[in-house]
Amino acid sequence: MSGAVSHDPVKVIFEPEGRSVLVLPGTPLIEAAGRAGIVLEAPCGGRGTCGKCKVEITQNAPPPGEADRRHLGREELRRGMRLACQTRVQKEMCVHVPVATRFFEHKILTDGKGRSVPLHPTVTKRFMKLPPPGLEDQRSDEDRLLGGLKQKGVTPHLGALRALPAALRQGDFEATAVCAEGRVLTIEAGDTTRWNYGMAFDIGTTTVVGFLIDLTTGRELAVAARANPQIPFGDDVVSRIRHASTHPEGLAQLQERIVQGLNEIIEDCCRQAGFGATHIYEVTVAGNTTMSHLFLGISPEFIAQAPYVCPLRRSINVWARDLGVRIHPHGLVHVLPNMAGFVGSDTTAVVLASGMHQSPERALAIDIGTNGELVVGNKDRLISCSTAAGPAFEGARIRFGMRAADGAIDKLVITYDVEYTVIGGTTPRGLCGTALIDLVAELLRVGAIDPTGRLLPPEETPERTPEAIRARLREGERGTEFVIVQGTEASAGGAMVLTQRDVREMQLAKGAIAAGAAILLKEFGVEPKDLGHILLAGAFGNFIRRSMARRIGLLPDVPTERILYIGNAAGAGARMALLSRKCKDEANRISDRTEYLELAGRADFQQEFTTAMMFPEG
Amino acid sequence: MSGAVSHDPVKVIFEPEGRSVLVLPGTPLIEAAGRAGIVLEAPCGGRGTCGKCKVEITQNAPPPGEADRRHLGREELRRGMRLACQTRVQKEMCVHVPVATRFFEHKILTDGKGRSVPLHPTVTKRFMKLPPPGLEDQRSDEDRLLGGLKQKGVTPHLGALRALPAALRQGDFEATAVCAEGRVLTIEAGDTTRWNYGMAFDIGTTTVVGFLIDLTTGRELAVAARANPQIPFGDDVVSRIRHASTHPEGLAQLQERIVQGLNEIIEDCCRQAGFGATHIYEVTVAGNTTMSHLFLGISPEFIAQAPYVCPLRRSINVWARDLGVRIHPHGLVHVLPNMAGFVGSDTTAVVLASGMHQSPERALAIDIGTNGELVVGNKDRLISCSTAAGPAFEGARIRFGMRAADGAIDKLVITYDVEYTVIGGTTPRGLCGTALIDLVAELLRVGAIDPTGRLLPPEETPERTPEAIRARLREGERGTEFVIVQGTEASAGGAMVLTQRDVREMQLAKGAIAAGAAILLKEFGVEPKDLGHILLAGAFGNFIRRSMARRIGLLPDVPTERILYIGNAAGAGARMALLSRKCKDEANRISDRTEYLELAGRADFQQEFTTAMMFPEG
Repeated sequence: MSGAVSHDPVKVIFEPEGRSVLVLPGTPLIEAAGRAGIVLEAPCGGRGTCGKCKVEITQNAPPPGEADRRHLGREELRRGMRLACQTRVQKEMCVHVPVATRFFEHKILTDGKGRSVPLHPTVTKRFMKLPPPGLEDQRSDEDRLLGGLKQKGVTPHLGALRALPAALRQGDFEATAVCAEGRVLTIEAGDTTRWNYGMAFDIGTTTVVGFLIDLTTGRELAVAARANPQIPFGDDVVSRIRHASTHPEGLAQLQERIVQGLNEIIEDCCRQAGFGATHIYEVTVAGNTTMSHLFLGISPEFIAQAPYVCPLRRSINVWARDLGVRIHPHGLVHVLPNMAGFVGSDTTAVVLASGMHQSPERALAIDIGTNGELVVGNKDRLISCSTAAGPAFEGARIRFGMRAADGAIDKLVITYDVEYTVIGGTTPRGLCGTALIDLVAELLRVGAIDPTGRLLPPEETPERTPEAIRARLREGERGTEFVIVQGTEASAGGAMVLTQRDVREMQLAKGAIAAGAAILLKEFGVEPKDLGHILLAGAFGNFIRRSMARRIGLLPDVPTERILYIGNAAGAGARMALLSRKCKDEANRISDRTEYLELAGRADFQQEFTTAMMFPEG
Repeated sequence: MSGAVSHDPVKVIFEPEGRSVLVLPGTPLIEAAGRAGIVLEAPCGGRGTCGKCKVEITQNAPPPGEADRRHLGREELRRGMRLACQTRVQKEMCVHVPVATRFFEHKILTDGKGRSVPLHPTVTKRFMKLPPPGLEDQRSDEDRLLGGLKQKGVTPHLGALRALPAALRQGDFEATAVCAEGRVLTIEAGDTTRWNYGMAFDIGTTTVVGFLIDLTTGRELAVAARANPQIPFGDDVVSRIRHASTHPEGLAQLQERIVQGLNEIIEDCCRQAGFGATHIYEVTVAGNTTMSHLFLGISPEFIAQAPYVCPLRRSINVWARDLGVRIHPHGLVHVLPNMAGFVGSDTTAVVLASGMHQSPERALAIDIGTNGELVVGNKDRLISCSTAAGPAFEGARIRFGMRAADGAIDKLVITYDVEYTVIGGTTPRGLCGTALIDLVAELLRVGAIDPTGRLLPPEETPERTPEAIRARLREGERGTEFVIVQGTEASAGGAMVLTQRDVREMQLAKGAIAAGAAILLKEFGVEPKDLGHILLAGAFGNFIRRSMARRIGLLPDVPTERILYIGNAAGAGARMALLSRKCKDEANRISDRTEYLELAGRADFQQEFTTAMMFPEG
């Protein structure tokens, strides 16, 4: 079959999570880890100079390279320790990622050896041995409890008072108080301090991910993800807002759906961990502004109308029961703070997780979806904006575009001809966003697309265009088109093509993001060359190949090694907020201090946008 | 008909409430007011020396007496002003009670002329004109609101955020924030500051009373009362505790019932006032400890078991919706603090309303029901106790005892023979508690009962016993009995009698209260003669005739004029807590500082009790 890759993807298993991922041979191990949602330390930008990304390859470790020898001891090399940025995946591997190598988590998690790190969960437990009552000590159960807590100004929640009499007597007046923010949430008989769990959620428009965390150790016990159950009411944020605003029961329906989604993920995680939700006392949530509002049952109607104002910006604590979230009946939900109508708490969480708000180095964080959310800044100043990339990267409005699901081409290169991998290893049914970028980038490189974005007819292509590629260019109904997969291969029946219009759609998408970035940098007063890093967040960002992204001009022009994948940084930020009250406060300060730049109000946006739609020369 | 009174009860109408009450001719007007739940100032104890109890009799004012002339001006006398303690009701009257004359309320209510008095409700309203959003001011609705409130640290409740977007836009960014305790409860479009209402409740085991109050003026807009809908599950506290503890759904049933009772009273008050419950934002509740617990859904099981410990003592704020109380969906419920397992928030409210906790004068407050709750003290020290009077005063265990309902004899005197009044003016069916006291006191006076409580056979009665009374004494199945109503009169068929056993039951009841009072005074170190006042609270206390109570030795031996009726002081205390946060704090301090004396733990109680069961000599 012409065009299919000759080498099959190989599996890499990451421990201790046990997560596996399939990658093309030759993929840097650090990138494979990113695809598995595990983000590694790489302050040098993956150049092999800092030695921070060391991992232990317990199966099929390749021979050490020069950088490995420079940074690792003999015994380490013998055990299979390697620098992940310098190691290319060639065969199936099993890789152990030490805590110290993890980008975010080492700051907040206890390592396997019990090294203590700041763990300050909102919900804490206190075990008390109380004196039993008698005729000489007739204090109320409440006074007895508060006496045992020895903390001023604590008030028990009604639920705690309801649990109190039985819990005290069941445990012979030995009981555990579950406390949060000056309130006693509940009382449990005996010593239950060992069981204190939480769930962190990243609610995306398309996907919802939840992490079950042990709050006594900081360890992740389970992860589960589901498609956002609101999808039947619209693929994107705008159609969900429309549904919520125009149907009498719309808001309630969407709220119920997303809560049900969370509940299923909680159940799923509990099943993995082998216990019930009784000892889960807190849930933290990051999501885009519309998702947070729908989750809370607050109408997002006005977010979508000029002047694009959201009802809620700050973080909020809500009783889980008031939302229908099924954890402990007196548990809490904390929704992280939004920044603006189109820059949500997921972006706040990205900044929190990246640490860019504390660094002197100027960085640009980008989360690409239907909207691109961008934040530029450092410890002194932060500016955010949102730019409507449109759904091209998610496969919509592209003739053969599709989501990154089974049957989607997800990676594509041009050698003498087109080579690609297909998710699930099936017959290709379409192109997902990353492959669209790959294809356009590669067609640019071989000269089949010119810098204005025109797909050239075969006779206009330059000499460097490979013959097989030239042969795939043909006249379609609406101008030139490029045949990706011949009819015989494609399950779609006819040939799978990239049309001129597809290229234009992708130019609009990448132009919007590039223009947003350009204006943000201009506003901040920084040249691309002075950016320390560009941080690519989110599932999509994780899969974009940096070289391809640079070639189409999606990102500001910085050396490839300064582009870092920071994985599901929104999820990581939500986890941090769960693990530490201080991180919650930090998130609030990030939201408070981040300036929001409304692109719709900028006279220069249209001009930047027009420029940014062009592809970089040569 | 021998024994029936020749003069009918007459009606007295009190304004501006419009409450009417039926009393026997000759009743002091101040006592009639107490029966109507209106308590008047009377620092002199009703001796006509202080001149504080002046009222305006607008219809049928009797000629002024000497005391009236001493204290009132000519013009006042002409308008019908009289001292209520010196005026006897003879004919139907209409009486206007000025605010200054009211015992509690003048401290907290605005009078009709708008004199300003401290009104500090927990729930306050703030009207704001906010700048509308634009592309140059894209603050979230929340930030806009909090900016308008100009108060640090205020957090909006989820419900307020849900109401926010629509409310702001409906009112063109003029809106009213409803705030309480640093939280925004809700937002209303436009200026709604005029409508701010609350309900105060006194939840008794038998009766529930609710008051609808305008929190912008302090005025009472409506009052409604119902029988406690828990009665089908038991007449008294102990049987309700038993039901809650032994039936799987018992607690939930009792909670649901009482909440339903409150909701009906709220509806009833709203109907009287002519508006809905939307602008009622707070409910305050006083009740005995068991009633508070059942209302909150907290098991009272251990209150009834040694060492008689209650789960909850302190005050608590709860969302109305969490209890099912139907006021504004984001409204609050405040339950006043209890003192101990058998001294509830109703007693705290009595102390609050009486002001005895702030006075240098030593006072004894008594609330008589199935239990007698007693508090002795002053500004320096407060001690409370509870004593199991048993249900005799409520009509139980008395052969012809009954509650104060239609058909009950409620007042009784012996002249040459027995004279009485019957509630509802019907044929008598039984005796209520006050009439039981009257009867025993009168039989003691005429010598038909001796100081040990023995009902004498006719031949043993002294000379002073009237012949008609002697004729009513007869040998019954179990010793001597006294015929109150002959068979021909009583609807019960046979004769209505007072038995020896009835007298013993009443001795147990009065002995328990008198012994409790004696021990409390001993503990405090005060002689009865040094008590400034005895304050009789509650419906029953209000109806006891002071002279009769003294004669049977129910109360410590103080001059009659020092015994004051303080009406529904528990309800008055709940109203005060509704009107002012400071009163809530005061109630908390009262509960914190009141020492509780457990009589079950006192070696001397049995001895005091035995003594107290005796009647005072002549």
